[in-house]
This record gives sequence, structure tokens and C-alpha cells, in this order.
Amino acid sequence: MAYYHAWTGKDMDRAMTHVADDIVCEAPTGRIEGVEGFRQFMAPFAQMLTSSDLITAFGNDETAVLMYNPHTTLVQDAPSAECFTVKDGRIVHSLLVFDRTPFDAARRATT
Amino acid sequence: MAYYHAWTGKDMDRAMTHVADDIVCEAPTGRIEGVEGFRQFMAPFAQMLTSSDLITAFGNDETAVLMYNPHTTLVQDAPSAECFTVKDGRIVHSLLVFDRTPFDAARRATT
Repeated sequence: MAYYHAWTGKDMDRAMTHVADDIVCEAPTGRIEGVEGFRQFMAPFAQMLTSSDLITAFGNDETAVLMYNPHTTLVQDAPSAECFTVKDGRIVHSLLVFDRTPFDAARRATT
Repeated sequence: MAYYHAWTGKDMDRAMTHVADDIVCEAPTGRIEGVEGFRQFMAPFAQMLTSSDLITAFGNDETAVLMYNPHTTLVQDAPSAECFTVKDGRIVHSLLVFDRTPFDAARRATT
């Protein structure tokens, strides 16, 4: 939740304090390894975010699941889910699921 | 979980016993209302399913979240998330998130 609040608040420095150096993120666009790559992946998305509604959050000491509806300048509703694996208080793995289709359509429409 | 096991086992009759008549499902393709429409929406997906790995499941009496990786004849890995709202033991609302992109690409490739 601290990670979610930080990045949706566009505070990427703070967000990355919750992320392990060797994070592995499986995203629709592919696999990202390492906190620097992960930050570069998330930053543009955070930048175009206007707000985000948290739909649900569950978790225990090792695993957390968030579903949220981010509103962006490109796509108004982009329901997303993330499953985090946490070790020593940091995210070591993230499985990110969202539908790329409306983003691709919006990008095509603006170019 | 009973719903998940039923539909991934391709037992749509059994799966629908866990679904309320007036279910509302928000899927990437749009909003589906009513159990008949929902069944028609899920059946083709169940049909092309070869197996499904459950990634995580959390919930309480009212809300459940599942993340799973369905393997289908069309797309090998299609990580998906569902947030269910349950009332009187039946699913009254489902928010379904998955990436349509690989499905659309596979359909284009086969036609």
C-alpha cells in the first residue's frame, strides 16, 4: 500500500524505497529486471496519471494483491491488478496485469 | 474458488451455480449483465482453456480476488485477475482484467 500510494502520488523516489534492487516485474509488455529498469518502466505511467481508485487490497507478510482503476491522460479507465511478493519489507516480484488495447488505440489515435 | 475450479474444469453448469442471476461483469471487452450473457461470455474462453495456474487468492465474506495464469489454445500465458463481490453465497459482480493484445494478435495471425 505504501508503494501504491507513493507512485500514484508521483513520488517515484519514495516508491522505489519499497522495491528491492533485484525486483523482477512481469508486465504485459514483458519482463523487467532491476529497480532502475522498473523505475523507468513505471515513471511514464505515473506521469500520465490523473488519479487512481483503489478497488481492493489483500495481503499477508509475503504476498499482496491490489486491484485499482488508474485514470490517465491517455485512457480514462485502465483497471489493473498487481500481485507483489515481498521479502524483508521490499517488493521482490510484481506481476502486473492490465489491458494494453485501449492504450495502443489511444496512441494510434494521437499519432 | 469453487467458481474458479468449476469453470477452469469446463463445468459451466456447476460454475453458474455460484453466479447470481443478475451478475454484472466488467470485462475488457465491456459490461455483461445477467447470468446467461455471462455464461455465453465465459464459455468460449473455457473451451479454449488447456489448463490454468492459480497465482494467488484472497478474500473475505464479501470480496474475493484471484490472479491466475490461464493457458489456452490461442495464447499460452494470459495472466488474469478477477475481483468478485459475493452476496448470499453468489457472485453478484466481477471485475475481470486481462490483456487482450495477445488474443487479438493470435486471432489476426490465424485468419
